[in-house]
Formats: sequence, structure tokens, C-alpha cells
Amino acid sequence: MSNSSTSAQTFRAIDVIRKKRDGGELSRFEIESLIASYTHGVIPDYQVSAWLMAVVLRSMTRGETAALTDAMLRSGEVLDLSAIPARKVDKHSTGGVGDKTSLVLAPLAAVAGVTVPMISGRGLGHTGGTLDKLEAIPGFNVNLPVPEFRRVLEMCGCAMIGQTAEIAPADRKLYALRDVTGTVESPYLICASIMSKKLAEGIDALVLDVKTGSGAFMKSEKDAAFLAELMVETGERMGKKTVALITDMDQPLGNMIGNALEVVEVVDVLRGGGPQDLRELCLELAGWMLHLGGVSKMVAEGKQESAKLLASGAALDRFRKMVELQGGDPRVIDDPKGLPQAEHSQEVLCAKNGYISSLQCEQIGTACVILGGGRERKEDSVDPAVGIVLHKKVGDCVAAGEPIATIYYNSESRVARAQQLLEESCRINDSPPTEKRPLIHRVIGK
Amino acid sequence: MSNSSTSAQTFRAIDVIRKKRDGGELSRFEIESLIASYTHGVIPDYQVSAWLMAVVLRSMTRGETAALTDAMLRSGEVLDLSAIPARKVDKHSTGGVGDKTSLVLAPLAAVAGVTVPMISGRGLGHTGGTLDKLEAIPGFNVNLPVPEFRRVLEMCGCAMIGQTAEIAPADRKLYALRDVTGTVESPYLICASIMSKKLAEGIDALVLDVKTGSGAFMKSEKDAAFLAELMVETGERMGKKTVALITDMDQPLGNMIGNALEVVEVVDVLRGGGPQDLRELCLELAGWMLHLGGVSKMVAEGKQESAKLLASGAALDRFRKMVELQGGDPRVIDDPKGLPQAEHSQEVLCAKNGYISSLQCEQIGTACVILGGGRERKEDSVDPAVGIVLHKKVGDCVAAGEPIATIYYNSESRVARAQQLLEESCRINDSPPTEKRPLIHRVIGK
Repeated sequence: MSNSSTSAQTFRAIDVIRKKRDGGELSRFEIESLIASYTHGVIPDYQVSAWLMAVVLRSMTRGETAALTDAMLRSGEVLDLSAIPARKVDKHSTGGVGDKTSLVLAPLAAVAGVTVPMISGRGLGHTGGTLDKLEAIPGFNVNLPVPEFRRVLEMCGCAMIGQTAEIAPADRKLYALRDVTGTVESPYLICASIMSKKLAEGIDALVLDVKTGSGAFMKSEKDAAFLAELMVETGERMGKKTVALITDMDQPLGNMIGNALEVVEVVDVLRGGGPQDLRELCLELAGWMLHLGGVSKMVAEGKQESAKLLASGAALDRFRKMVELQGGDPRVIDDPKGLPQAEHSQEVLCAKNGYISSLQCEQIGTACVILGGGRERKEDSVDPAVGIVLHKKVGDCVAAGEPIATIYYNSESRVARAQQLLEESCRINDSPPTEKRPLIHRVIGK
Repeated sequence: MSNSSTSAQTFRAIDVIRKKRDGGELSRFEIESLIASYTHGVIPDYQVSAWLMAVVLRSMTRGETAALTDAMLRSGEVLDLSAIPARKVDKHSTGGVGDKTSLVLAPLAAVAGVTVPMISGRGLGHTGGTLDKLEAIPGFNVNLPVPEFRRVLEMCGCAMIGQTAEIAPADRKLYALRDVTGTVESPYLICASIMSKKLAEGIDALVLDVKTGSGAFMKSEKDAAFLAELMVETGERMGKKTVALITDMDQPLGNMIGNALEVVEVVDVLRGGGPQDLRELCLELAGWMLHLGGVSKMVAEGKQESAKLLASGAALDRFRKMVELQGGDPRVIDDPKGLPQAEHSQEVLCAKNGYISSLQCEQIGTACVILGGGRERKEDSVDPAVGIVLHKKVGDCVAAGEPIATIYYNSESRVARAQQLLEESCRINDSPPTEKRPLIHRVIGK
């Protein structure tokens, strides 16, 4: 318990815990004091974990969520990018399988005239992480110090790094505690965690990609929409243009899953090709980034402009430039053989004739983690070479014995479990699915 | 997080926290593992406090409450008093103001043929504590080691000590954590805390005095009855005869509040006198103790027998014997001048003519704490001499200027606040109260 004698109001952690426990609404002062005291080590973990559990079970108001986001944001450095004249816009995804849009969007939006200061994360659970994908490019450095990050941004309009110690330290401390106290699953806490980090980037606008379906953390569209609305409202309350797209993660995005494989697919999209779903989602998100960044009056216009920049190779050139500026080997862009390659491959064959009715997406993500493409425990290292290439997606007609996927692996001991998961993930029906899930479920905000 | 490899079932604290967070019912194995791991320092405070908050907000089933009580009980030593042939019966009160029944009941039930191994606590908040009252007797030692406790029990049928380090260490650790994490107020946790300590005394039966009213922790009769039912069911599930009396704590019990003053009033009752409410409650509780202890077929019979033992002086003799065996000076029983005396006294005068309609009981308890009769902080020492003598109780006719109470004090700086609280605590109406609150609201169990 701590008493602040510098303020007319006094703060006692126990009072804040009790108030939330009893369903009360905390004041901005109470939330700020709690977060500041915790970040500075004045109040112990055991009081904060009791408070977090009370938040999980009692929820928060919109005002409390914004105050929490603000307190976490202001626990560390907030980048000031006002010296860069272009509007600063970022995109954040809640995480999925095969979701490599960030690597396309940063150079694409940058070449269109928006500045993209992107601070990303690593794979979590069954999902992939932007930093792990970037590190599949030999030499690519995601740990730039802030002045270097700023230099890359100024030189090519985009830069992609990991969270620095200076950004939202309260979030790092709170997230570690939430992870071991069963208090991760609260939309209010998830919102504050995401938004505090993103708003610390010094951005003017933010496009959120909130995933829903079997490969998302929010399986139901209702939960995804609730979180999306919360994040949009929090962003707007904090003076940033914010929009959220609820997008489909009921099957992997694109065909490639695994860090180096996903870089290959990113380059395909940046060349104007790539799988249709991945390309379409990139264009949609880019359209919104350009619109919120003031480059395009309408989203549709931004989409069109983005398609042009893919077709012309301008976006790919910008990607090459960013890779070079961040220490990566740009030759792999033109010759993917320079990317890490798995030693072995094995096909997953279809058991019967019919149509793929579903691909259980979390299982596919987990199969990639098992191959070594993600972490089963925090301290694990990631094998960039391994992964899965899907040859079929939901709705496709398949014949018995036909390959539905290829597994790329380096360890014999892991491939059997991955293969089993892939086989189990795939449901085949005699007739084609009658309904096709849309790629974009809803747009929230604006 | 801890894994038990000795059992086919594995225990992870995070799974138990999540299950309770989601409203699930924990198994005996899960509860036992959590409490044992915590007591042995294998899992940290921050996981247990998150779990405690989930229990406060999600509640527990009767089975979980019994399993928790059992796990806490078995975290330490359980006294084996089977060598003593008489039935072992204890009484526990949830705490009040002026509640000194334990000091009457232990010798009274003992002289009737029941063995009373009483392990008591200190004052908590605005309430008094049995240990603090006993220590007002010069030389009285409440810190007997277990073999000495057993010797006193064998020699006089009753002994009164404080909690030892060996009894329910899980409760001590949990209580300290609950106190600073806003997780005290759960009937399930209160039940397990009380019952684990009481059942560790090696008793056959237990009489619970659950207080309700303005001086109780459970202000409403509904809350008191809920806790009482929980404790009775838990006791019975663990094979102990258990009964709970919901008794009135809407005004202080008896007329004297303060440690040495309460010893004086105890002696009055043991001599067959004393205030009517205190005497009546002692007889009722003694009746139940004798009944559950197998000495009296009916409660009424036990009450009658108890009244005889007060009238004959046998109970007082037994009290004297216990005081002597525990190192206390027995002369203070016959000459209360030997008890600590306050240096000053001051009367609280009645403001107007009328009838006392209520005495806000928590305020009166707090007034005594302010005088030094209790602790404002854990580390405070208690002044045994100070206290309050009430000259009027609810329903009494009063005249303006007449003393309603006398304050006994040692510190001029404290008396004004105590006086103000006493004045505020007393409501006076023109007409007498139409309804009288009963002393015994309900009996739960049997």
C-alpha cells in the first residue's frame, strides 16, 4: 500500500482493488496511480493480480479502458514523429495463421505517401509473429535503437522493429503477470495492451485487423466485434483516427505458413501476384491506411492506387530498400533460394474424394509451431526454414491421394505430430460448402 | 507453476485459477495441491491472490468449501486430545463489541464436565479479542506450548491460548494475503479460515456464535445466516457436531468494553450476577456446549445446569484455577483493584430527554480502539486499562444531563475523539422503541 502525499487525493491500492471488486468505476486518478505505482515497483504483484482478476470478472467502462490505455502509454516513451511531414499510420492485427500482411503493407503504404512506423511482436501460441518472419531474411535487424528507427523511417517511409524497453514498460510488466495469473482473457485488458503500444508509436491513425474464426484468439465474430469496438472507441477518445476490420481467420491466410515461406509469399504479393485472399486483404487494409493517412479521399481509391503500386513493382522496390536499410540481404527478394531452406519435405495426402468443408485453423498453426516454426515455450528459438504450404483451401474439390499440403521440416521426430494435426484439421464433404465465409466480415469505425 | 510428478494427476496453478475464473468447480485434488503448494512456497503470492479474487467473485460450492477447510486444517498440526476421555467442545464467535462470553464459557462448560481446548484471537478492527482480555490479568500467559496447553486442559478441563505456529499455517499465510488484496470479504474464505483453525483443536463439537447488527462484521441477518449455514455444513461434513446461533450485536454485549473492564464483568457473571444480556447469552451458549458435549440431553437442561454452576461459585472457582495454571494472578478475581486501572475518567452526558432508540455499535467499538483498548495498526500495543462503561442500553429512558457512559482513559489526546464517537453513536427518540431486537435471532444446525 502506498500513500501519495503530493496530491490532494490519496491513493491506496487496497481501496482500488476493493472498488473494482465491488463493481465500481475507477477514476482516472485511481487508474493512473495504480499503473504508475506498479511500474515503479511501489506496489507488489500480488495486489495487481487481484485487481486484474477483478477487472476480468467485473469488466471496465469505456472511460476506464481509455484511462488505463493512457496510463500504460505514458508509463514510457511516446515517439514524437512530428518532424516527419507525412501522416503516420500503422496497422495492427490480433494475430492469425499465415497472416503476413504487415510485410506487404508497410512498404506499400509508404510508397503511396504514408509513413508507417511499425512496432511488432513475435508469434504467440499458435499464431505467427511479424518479427519472426522478418528475421527469416538473413541479416535483418528488428532491434534498431529509436534514433536508427527514425532514420530508416525518414529514408524510406517505413521501418519495422520490435518493442523497445522504452515503449510502454507497464504493458510488459502487466502482460508477464497476466500470463501467469489467468488474466489474459479480458477485452478491456487486451485493448489497453494493444492500444498503449500502438499509440506510443506517435501515429496519427491506426487500422486494426481483428481476426475471427478457428485460427483467431477471438473465435466468435461477436467477441471480435466487441474488442474491435472497444479499440476503435479507445483510439478515437485518444484523438487518433481508428478503424477496425473484422476479417476471416477460419482458414490460414494465403497458402504459406512458416517464416521463410511467408516471406516468399509476401514477395509474390509485392510483385502483383500471390494468393487471392492474401492479396485482397492487403489491398483492403492498404486502402484504409491510405484513406486515414489522407492520401486517398475514399478507401476504394486507396485500394486502386495500391493495386497499381503492386503492379508497377514500386512497392517491391520499397520493400527491398527497407530490407537493405535494416541490414537484411536484399538478394533473397529476387532469389528466394537465399532464404533458409528446410532439409526435408513430405506431402499430406487427401483421404477421400470430395470438397474441403473446413480447415481447422488453430490446428494448422499448432502444426507449424510443432515443426519449430513457433515457440512451445518462451525460451525456445524459432526455425525459420520449416513450415507448411497448402495446396487446397476451403471449397476446393479434392481427389483421394491428391496432396493437400506439403510439410517442410528439419526434424524427423516432429513431422509425425504435425502431419496428424494437418490431417485432422481438414474436413471433406461430398458436396461443396453452400456458404462461403466473407474475407471482410465487418468494418467498425468511421 | 508447479507440477506434481508423484501423482497421476498433474497440478498447474494457472489451470486452477482459470477454472475458478470461469466459474468451474475445483476438485479436492486441485484445492489440496494449491494450498499445499502455497504453504510450502512453491507458488507465488500473485497467483494465489488472483485465485482468491476469483473465489470472492465466483463463490465456491459446499464441497469446495469443505475441501479448502480440510486442506488448510491439514497444512499444520491437528491436536490429538483423544487421551482426554471427556468430549472436547469449543465455542467461536465472529467478533463483536463487549463480547466476553469465552471467558465465562470455558470454565463454566469445564466444570460441567466438557473439555474446552480454546484457541482464540486478538481484537480485529473495532472488535475486542479474547487474548487481549486474558492478558489484562497480570501474569496470564496465552502463549503456552502445546504440551503445557494439554497439561492445563487435563488439570482443569479448559485452557485458553493463542494460535501457535503449528496450527493451520496455510490460514496465517492466506489471511495476511487476503488482508492486502481485498479478498477478506468472502463467506467461503471466512468459513474455511475459522473452521480450519477450530477443527485443528481436536474437538468433537463446536458452537458458533455468529453476530449480526451494527457492531458485527456481518451487518445483515441474511449475511450472518449464510455464513452460519456454511460453517455448520462444513463442520458436519468433517464429522463434527456443529451448531450456530445468530446473536445480536446491534449494541454492545453487557455494559463494559475494554480489556480489564471486561474481566471485571466476566467475574460478575461467574458470581451469578452481571448484566442480563451477557448472562443470558452465556447460559444459552453453555447450554448448547453441554448438549453437544453429551453432558445434557436437552439444551434447556444444560442451561439450567449452567445457571446452577454460576450460582454455586463452582464456575468461578474453575476460572480461578485456570488463571493460576496459566500464570495469572488469581487475586484480581476477588479484588478487581489488582487489574490495570485507567488514570482518568470522564462521563458522557445525555443531550436530551427521551429513550435510547439505538447505539451504533461499531462506533462504540472504534471509540474503545481509539482510547488504546485495541489496535489501529497491527504493530500497536493495547492498553488493558482503558475502556467504556455504558450506563444505558437501547430502550432505556434517559434525561438530559444524565450520564449515559463513562470513559476510562490514560491519554488526554484521545478522549475527545472517543467522546464524540460515543455521543454520535447514541440516538434518542421521544418515545420508546416499539420493537426489541431478540438476543438470539436464530439457531442453525441440529
